[in-house]
Amino acid sequence: MTNWVEIDRLAKLWVKEAGSRIKASMQEGLSIETKSNPNDLVTNIDKETERFFIEKIQSTFSDHHILGEEGQGEEVISLDGIVWIIDPIDGTMNFVHQKRNFAISIGIFEHGVGKIGLIYDVIHDELYHAVKGEGAYMNDILLPPLKDVAIEKAIVGINPTWAIESPHFDAKPFARLVRDVRGTRTIGSAALELAYIASGRSDAYVTLRLAPWDYAAGCVLLDEVGAVYSNIHGERLTFLEKNSIVAGNRSVCEKILHDYIKGSGNKQ
Amino acid sequence: MTNWVEIDRLAKLWVKEAGSRIKASMQEGLSIETKSNPNDLVTNIDKETERFFIEKIQSTFSDHHILGEEGQGEEVISLDGIVWIIDPIDGTMNFVHQKRNFAISIGIFEHGVGKIGLIYDVIHDELYHAVKGEGAYMNDILLPPLKDVAIEKAIVGINPTWAIESPHFDAKPFARLVRDVRGTRTIGSAALELAYIASGRSDAYVTLRLAPWDYAAGCVLLDEVGAVYSNIHGERLTFLEKNSIVAGNRSVCEKILHDYIKGSGNKQ
Repeated sequence: MTNWVEIDRLAKLWVKEAGSRIKASMQEGLSIETKSNPNDLVTNIDKETERFFIEKIQSTFSDHHILGEEGQGEEVISLDGIVWIIDPIDGTMNFVHQKRNFAISIGIFEHGVGKIGLIYDVIHDELYHAVKGEGAYMNDILLPPLKDVAIEKAIVGINPTWAIESPHFDAKPFARLVRDVRGTRTIGSAALELAYIASGRSDAYVTLRLAPWDYAAGCVLLDEVGAVYSNIHGERLTFLEKNSIVAGNRSVCEKILHDYIKGSGNKQ
Repeated sequence: MTNWVEIDRLAKLWVKEAGSRIKASMQEGLSIETKSNPNDLVTNIDKETERFFIEKIQSTFSDHHILGEEGQGEEVISLDGIVWIIDPIDGTMNFVHQKRNFAISIGIFEHGVGKIGLIYDVIHDELYHAVKGEGAYMNDILLPPLKDVAIEKAIVGINPTWAIESPHFDAKPFARLVRDVRGTRTIGSAALELAYIASGRSDAYVTLRLAPWDYAAGCVLLDEVGAVYSNIHGERLTFLEKNSIVAGNRSVCEKILHDYIKGSGNKQ
């Protein structure tokens, strides 16, 4: 039988160790490359951190699978068995430019169900952590269930990109949302956006393009505080493909999905 | 003769003491009111912190003037003499919702010239500090002069509000800017946006509405790292009125003013 207590203990240990290694590496120079486009950055530290996790996992749990952002694991085409969904550095642009506001994000899934979520804000030494059915924590602080929030009092994480006109999507519902809410914020790390929601600092996060390693850990946290998540059509996330995302406080997300996005020209 | 070393020593001491008081107060409940509009928040802690500074300054430097966000000082209509320009909590919305990412911001001016700038990120215990002609620091780390950055590699702080269509201003130049830069961020504290620029984490900050207490301290920091600031027409700030602002790396700001905003329909 799977020993989830042991998996959890090791995952936390490795995340902290990886964080220390990242901090130490930051004293040295970074080697920065670009991926799909000039703003999609990857550094030697992203790759080294992913390799660190792959080696630890493969040598300890030889039957577990690994879906990682930098693609150095295996090609994962289903969530059968136990799958670690890993973003070694979520928010690489912040890592490069700000040297902060990035996170290690690890979701551990069993047959497609999120069991453990870990988001580690390395620089601020804040570990957001949840085990399915056992609550979500920031370090040792239990995160309380979210309460309903009116849309006009909501803080929403959204990148300005989604609210300005584009030939690729219908920005109007997002521009209207920006106007109606109390405030918008853009952290630059999806994992931290979701951790902020779980800890009640933000009420929703909306984006049109996100990969499983960006949101897998966050969704495990959100489950434990009664938050919701879906694509912009209210459909379940697959945790295998890139998706649009509406995540957050249930009352706010229902309003965003129903009163803003529904009927708009967005297909994603 | 004015003893600037002593003013600087006391200003730093008081900022740290105010920070400790804010942290202690956060354990108790907040009393939240709204000001000019439902999203313009003020708490009892904003007011108490401003009163703390007013009492300290008036009892020590009876001839100094105080321009404070909460308006409990005097009515300041000129920058003659020595003026403390104070935002006791810059980013009150973050203070209320996030319990972080807010700052105490104090600029001390003599005859309209910024002499001392202090921005204290209370929760992360990071004091950004500059004395005119003596360099800018984050805690004890000297902040190096900024280097030129190409617009397509720039990180720009901008609230989505300014990039979506409005009857009140021409959003098109800001929407184009959002498309062209490497990334945009929205922290929710103008003082921290400027501190981020001074420390090289962000390359520019653009906003159409900002009060002197939001930017006074930041501008003293920016001077010391070779950064620039103006309203969106490239004109000098008065430090007495609300302005639009383009602040940051010189190469990026010149490009924003000349290639984006110039010729647009913005009057502010």
